[in-house]
Amino acid sequence: MTRQVHLNVNILNAGVFGGSWRLPGTDPLASFGLAHYVDIARKAEAAKFDAVFLADGPAIREDLRYRPFNSLEPSVVLAAVAASTSRIGLIGTLSSSYNDPYDVARRFATLDQLSGGRSGWNVVTTAGRQSARNFGFDDEPDHGRRYERAAEFVEVVRKLWNSWEPDALVGDKSGQVFADTTRIHRTDHHGEHFDVAGPLNVPRSPQGEPVVVQAGASRDGRALAARVGEVIFTAAQTEDEAREYYHDVKARARGYGRGPEDVIVLPGLSTVIGSTEAEARERRELLAELVPPEYALDRLAGQLGVPRESLVLDGSLPWELLADPDDAGGSQTFYKIAVSLARRESLTVRQLLRRLGGGAGHRIVTGTPEQIADAIVDWVDKGVADGFNLMPDVLPSGFDDFVDHVVPELQRRGVFRTDYDSTTLRGHLGLAAPHHAIPSSHVEQVVA
Amino acid sequence: MTRQVHLNVNILNAGVFGGSWRLPGTDPLASFGLAHYVDIARKAEAAKFDAVFLADGPAIREDLRYRPFNSLEPSVVLAAVAASTSRIGLIGTLSSSYNDPYDVARRFATLDQLSGGRSGWNVVTTAGRQSARNFGFDDEPDHGRRYERAAEFVEVVRKLWNSWEPDALVGDKSGQVFADTTRIHRTDHHGEHFDVAGPLNVPRSPQGEPVVVQAGASRDGRALAARVGEVIFTAAQTEDEAREYYHDVKARARGYGRGPEDVIVLPGLSTVIGSTEAEARERRELLAELVPPEYALDRLAGQLGVPRESLVLDGSLPWELLADPDDAGGSQTFYKIAVSLARRESLTVRQLLRRLGGGAGHRIVTGTPEQIADAIVDWVDKGVADGFNLMPDVLPSGFDDFVDHVVPELQRRGVFRTDYDSTTLRGHLGLAAPHHAIPSSHVEQVVA
Repeated sequence: MTRQVHLNVNILNAGVFGGSWRLPGTDPLASFGLAHYVDIARKAEAAKFDAVFLADGPAIREDLRYRPFNSLEPSVVLAAVAASTSRIGLIGTLSSSYNDPYDVARRFATLDQLSGGRSGWNVVTTAGRQSARNFGFDDEPDHGRRYERAAEFVEVVRKLWNSWEPDALVGDKSGQVFADTTRIHRTDHHGEHFDVAGPLNVPRSPQGEPVVVQAGASRDGRALAARVGEVIFTAAQTEDEAREYYHDVKARARGYGRGPEDVIVLPGLSTVIGSTEAEARERRELLAELVPPEYALDRLAGQLGVPRESLVLDGSLPWELLADPDDAGGSQTFYKIAVSLARRESLTVRQLLRRLGGGAGHRIVTGTPEQIADAIVDWVDKGVADGFNLMPDVLPSGFDDFVDHVVPELQRRGVFRTDYDSTTLRGHLGLAAPHHAIPSSHVEQVVA
Repeated sequence: MTRQVHLNVNILNAGVFGGSWRLPGTDPLASFGLAHYVDIARKAEAAKFDAVFLADGPAIREDLRYRPFNSLEPSVVLAAVAASTSRIGLIGTLSSSYNDPYDVARRFATLDQLSGGRSGWNVVTTAGRQSARNFGFDDEPDHGRRYERAAEFVEVVRKLWNSWEPDALVGDKSGQVFADTTRIHRTDHHGEHFDVAGPLNVPRSPQGEPVVVQAGASRDGRALAARVGEVIFTAAQTEDEAREYYHDVKARARGYGRGPEDVIVLPGLSTVIGSTEAEARERRELLAELVPPEYALDRLAGQLGVPRESLVLDGSLPWELLADPDDAGGSQTFYKIAVSLARRESLTVRQLLRRLGGGAGHRIVTGTPEQIADAIVDWVDKGVADGFNLMPDVLPSGFDDFVDHVVPELQRRGVFRTDYDSTTLRGHLGLAAPHHAIPSSHVEQVVA
């Protein structure tokens, strides 16, 4: 059988391009209201996507003068989406640096119960001083320390998700047994970062456990992704970058006793779709023009960690100021992509900004639905991706074009489902329920 | 105009009585799924209730062998309810002892955006060792300390909710201004418990601020309720208890510069409804029988903090072991109610258990719809309550009877709305938007 494509849509406010909200016909404030998320999720479900995804950071974006940002809290938004859909997976981001494992385990377990087994948690360590200062810290914790905490955090969350065996809820009226407490186990986690007694107060997930998603790019990040990620988001501009990451992370996963089928790698894919190539290129040009250049320069300076004055639109990057990506701190995905791209193609700053599209450093494909489908099938066929984390140029219009024109093309080619054969996110992804040892202790009972 | 009644329904899993889940016709596991909450909220909305309410504690209930408990995380559940309703208020509980203010502010602000201004936050300090041990503590923090933290927590949350002025989101495409950052202000809170930079990353609430709810019973609790509570839940078995609390908390509120109309006091009200008095009494007897007596004894011993052996069904309470309620620690509402009731009426343990109904110490009224309506109107007319936090005996059936028979009776008497005249929770409650000083600093801009 032809290798199947997994598709997830990233509902990134008004779209991945910095000027998306300014495109004629786009409601600039839509992403601050419920209908935006429900409408896109319903379209994604009708198109048989695996999941919708919400990125997140617990701080204001300082560039909000110039563009929308992800404002609303994902677990709350996805619950509203759960009530309005029936099949599509629901992946939300919560930080392992600024939350407690019990609370995170519970919120995703609740989303999972409400949705019938459709929730996924994207673990992020949350770079940046802004977020740190909203949670009582002067600055972000050290990069390595954040990843150590994240690894233990995920371990605790999974222990909590596994504190209930299946069928612990009995509801036996005549036997006077509501829950079989011998099937509910204390967690008793005592680690370097966390002490958590448990058990969780939410029953076991309908899909075994919510799906764990990760997007590590740095050395520490790749190690975490390989260890815990069941879906891994990544950014790759070229087939070679995609291949390197795909093989590296699957090899690392093997080191943790995990098979290649336990780890689904989805590179980001930004799409600009036109009914002809010329139309697509015209849309992309327009989107590039809609980003104020001063904003783009400031943003790039911040992301590269160089002074604003060191960037000149028609000059090259200030190479002498740029650190090795692994030593740069902050969000490394963008940094690495941008620096590699500029170096490989000897781009001026202006050319680099144009190539990045004001976006997050993900691959952008501009073309007809057939060309987009070609690009998708190409990487999946070559075994450098298991599918894509779609980041439409503009929401909802760019996504409408994708579901109306690209999805039918993929279905015609036999590489994408025409109906769901599962009711859970884990099922859509073809992931086995993880096997976690269930501890032997059971919950203390007030009543003997 | 006749004094109007405010009504809130507490969706307390299968109902307030310990044996509710065992009543024939009741689905014992319903409260672990979405439909339970959506169905009750839709009925409450059709009946023009002010709000639905979810109580919460971040730990398993050790009596779950014998009865359901509130398992699902409220902010997530209420978001799903928000998507399925349009007018009813949505009040959820989150602990000020085991969360961060930025996260709580954001979750309720998000719920508020999604619901068009219908969210309310019930601040609880969370008694008990079980919860503490899920968040890295050996035991619950000291009672006074928990309330100090709660007061500062609410202060920070409100500063965050006020960090955005109205209309800060502009979305001006031609002017290239997405947000007017001069209308978004840093929070810069530096207190004993919290350092929070802000601003919040969610725009100002459609209702100004989400409504703050509190249920303080102890000395510290009443002080907190009077200082920050806009809705105050309380437990009162008798008119005198209700009067004492009502006048005390409104007088204390005056001490904080707040008028009586700024503080809405809603005693808990458990109802057992029959089409005749005899039918109602029969239902109540049946519900009492459905609670296993061993379970009831164990639970009472735990709540009173006395050894299980000290309680004998046909004996009196072990008075020599009982501390003054204000010194007892733990959740004081139940303790105070139970001890006062047993003392006042010289009840045996069996009689006390019967009177408490296996419930949470709230007043229980058993009777016909007219008698229930009489009881409601009586306290509101006498000025000892502004309405009630309804805790139906069994969910959904006890609530169905209330909305089908009691609500029309209240409407006939002209004391309860027949339609909403507002779209927000604050509007339903007749609460003014609080006036908070907006700080003078504005958000740092990366772009000048």
